[in-house]
Formats: sequence, C-alpha cells, structure tokens
Amino acid sequence: MPNGICGLYVIVDPAACAGRDPVDVARLALEGGAAMVQWRDKRCDKGDQISDARAIRKLCREHDALFIVNDHVDFALAVGADGVHLGQRDLSAAEARALVPEGFVVGVSTNNVEEAERAVADGASYVAVGSIFATDTKSTARPASPDTLRDVKRAVRLPVVAIGGINADNVEEAVAAGADAVAVISAVCAVDDVRAAAQELAARFKV
Amino acid sequence: MPNGICGLYVIVDPAACAGRDPVDVARLALEGGAAMVQWRDKRCDKGDQISDARAIRKLCREHDALFIVNDHVDFALAVGADGVHLGQRDLSAAEARALVPEGFVVGVSTNNVEEAERAVADGASYVAVGSIFATDTKSTARPASPDTLRDVKRAVRLPVVAIGGINADNVEEAVAAGADAVAVISAVCAVDDVRAAAQELAARFKV
Repeated sequence: MPNGICGLYVIVDPAACAGRDPVDVARLALEGGAAMVQWRDKRCDKGDQISDARAIRKLCREHDALFIVNDHVDFALAVGADGVHLGQRDLSAAEARALVPEGFVVGVSTNNVEEAERAVADGASYVAVGSIFATDTKSTARPASPDTLRDVKRAVRLPVVAIGGINADNVEEAVAAGADAVAVISAVCAVDDVRAAAQELAARFKV
Repeated sequence: MPNGICGLYVIVDPAACAGRDPVDVARLALEGGAAMVQWRDKRCDKGDQISDARAIRKLCREHDALFIVNDHVDFALAVGADGVHLGQRDLSAAEARALVPEGFVVGVSTNNVEEAERAVADGASYVAVGSIFATDTKSTARPASPDTLRDVKRAVRLPVVAIGGINADNVEEAVAAGADAVAVISAVCAVDDVRAAAQELAARFKV
C-alpha cells in the first residue's frame, strides 16, 4: 500500500534528466527514498510516453510510492497511475474527478489561498503551492513564498505540497512553513548522484 | 440522433480559422451541412479550450452532427463529445476504448492497410486515411493516395474517412475511391465563405 501525500515528491520530466533515461532516474530517486513520483512530459505524444510511464509505475509499486501523471487524466488511467496532477489551465479537479475511480489522487497546482480553496471545493486530494523559491526549471511558474504556503496550509485541510526551487539548503524552510511533501525536479533529476540527492531530501521526512 | 460516420467532416483548429472565432466557423460549417465536426487544438491547455469545445458540441447537437475531439480522451469526455480521434502516436484505440462508455466513437488516423487493420483490431469506430492529396495544413502528414484509400476500404469493414488536401475539385475522386466521409480543414475553415464551402462539399453526400 503506497504512502499518502507526504515526503519527497520527485517530478520526472525527460527534458530535465540531463540526457539520462528517465526510468533510470526514477529508479534512483525511489531507491533514495522518494515517496511520490510524477511523470511529466510536455513534449511527446502520449503513445510515445506510455512504455516509460508504465515502467516507472511498476517501480513505484515496488517501492510503495505513489505514481502521479501530469496533466492528462486519460494517460494516467491508461498507465494505471495512482493519480493525476493538474495545472490551473488544465481540466479542473471537478472535471477530472468525474472521470476517475474513487480513491484516485487528484492534485492541483495553486499559487494562492483562493486557488487552493477552489481546488478543495472541486474535490482535489492535495494542493501544490509554488513557486515558493526561485526556479529555472519552469519558466512560466508564478512566484509565491513560504508565507503563501503557510497561508494555504491554514486555509485548507488537504495535504499541501511545496514546489519551486526546493533543494537541500531550503527544504527545512518549506517543511517549517507546513509542507507535507516537497516536490522537486532539478534538485534530484538533474544532478550527478540522483540517489544521494533524493536520500538527503527524503531524510528530512523520516520518522 | 446524430448521423453515422458519413458526409462532410470538418476539423476546426483555431490555428487554421484565418483568425476568426472557431465557434463561429463551426456554426457556419454546420449550417453549410457538415455532418461531423472535430475539435483540434494542439496549442492551448485543455482548460483554455473547454468553453469553445462545449459551445461547438452544443451546435453539433442542434444540427444532428457528431462532435469529435482530437487526441484527448479525457477532454472529449469532459466536454460531452460523441467521440475522440487518435493519431498513431496517441493512446491506442484499445487504450481509449477502455476509458469510454459503450457507443463512444473512436477514430484512428492511418496511412496504410496495416495500420487500418490494427485500428480495427483495437476497436476503432472508423479509420481516417491520408494524406490522400497534398496538403499544407499538417506538415507532418505522411503521403497516401486515393489508391491507399481504396485498399483500406477493401481491407476493413469500418467507415473510412478520407483526409488531406481535399477540396471541391478532388472530392469526387475521394468518394469514388470509397470514402464514406471526407475530412477537411482549410478547404472550409480558412476560406472567406465558410458556409458556402461546406455546402459545396456536403452536397456531394446528399441523397
């Protein structure tokens, strides 16, 4: 049985894996202790992503980690993911919820309390809040801060995922602000030693 | 009750509507006699497409036309479309079929008999064959010919949609080769008088 929405949440984007096989990167991140993995591929058609996504889903099962797919509910269902993660310009959580079985995880990117409260009303399973630190990975990310995260955490009763520029130096600040999970891309996927980077961040969540 | 897979099939792509409102273009095409409309937007996030797609779905209902969505099964379901159209690099028809209710239309782009037969085996409702004439609209289109269409029509028992460079001058050739429907983009959506262009092509299918 996978964990809930907590701990290290690694977003595997083939474009951000420093040219390495994204399945290998996911495996190393899971070995390092990632509790959640998200598949995010903004470039390829779904058919071209399906075998990598299924391979990562299998690895997540083996590590009791949740496997989430970015943007596409149909793809998430087709590869047997545990959930889908939606941006503010994707289908809404309510629209997604209508298409998925009970217990399916539906996460929503938010940037402020208002968006987080709407996600809750729409049936989201968690909200991500970001970008809480400066990031180069996602050029369109809207700025937020640890204070935004704190406000959202106070306003909603869902798990809150911190995202945006998180690394070993600032992860404490995100957790102190109320993050149940921290989502990272480059801090794990783009570094030389993926497993060690995951381990260092995941250690923050060990009981 | 909408018609089956036959007649004029207009693909409305906001990028190919000569700057006009795609909902207006769809309305004029339906007034001109389109029996099927496909929504295809490769550029925008799904959330940004939803109100246009729902508006066109409503127009299709009023005109007893089928409304099909390109690529995304989740989006097709969310907007209440009658079906989805899949390329060779999208989810397969079998993967899509597993996500949709009975009677949902699943169309597949094919380029030869082999792909058409696989689509049939996967549970497709129709196959599109193209590009049967030269086209500028889709730069990645693989060439086929009216002979390809003829071969596919002989090989499969599904409705066959001809696509690629079809216009008033060559539509007869597509129909003579066995097309149950002809799909067009620019020949209807990019011209000054959308309604008249649709009328001219649709007239070919009137009993």
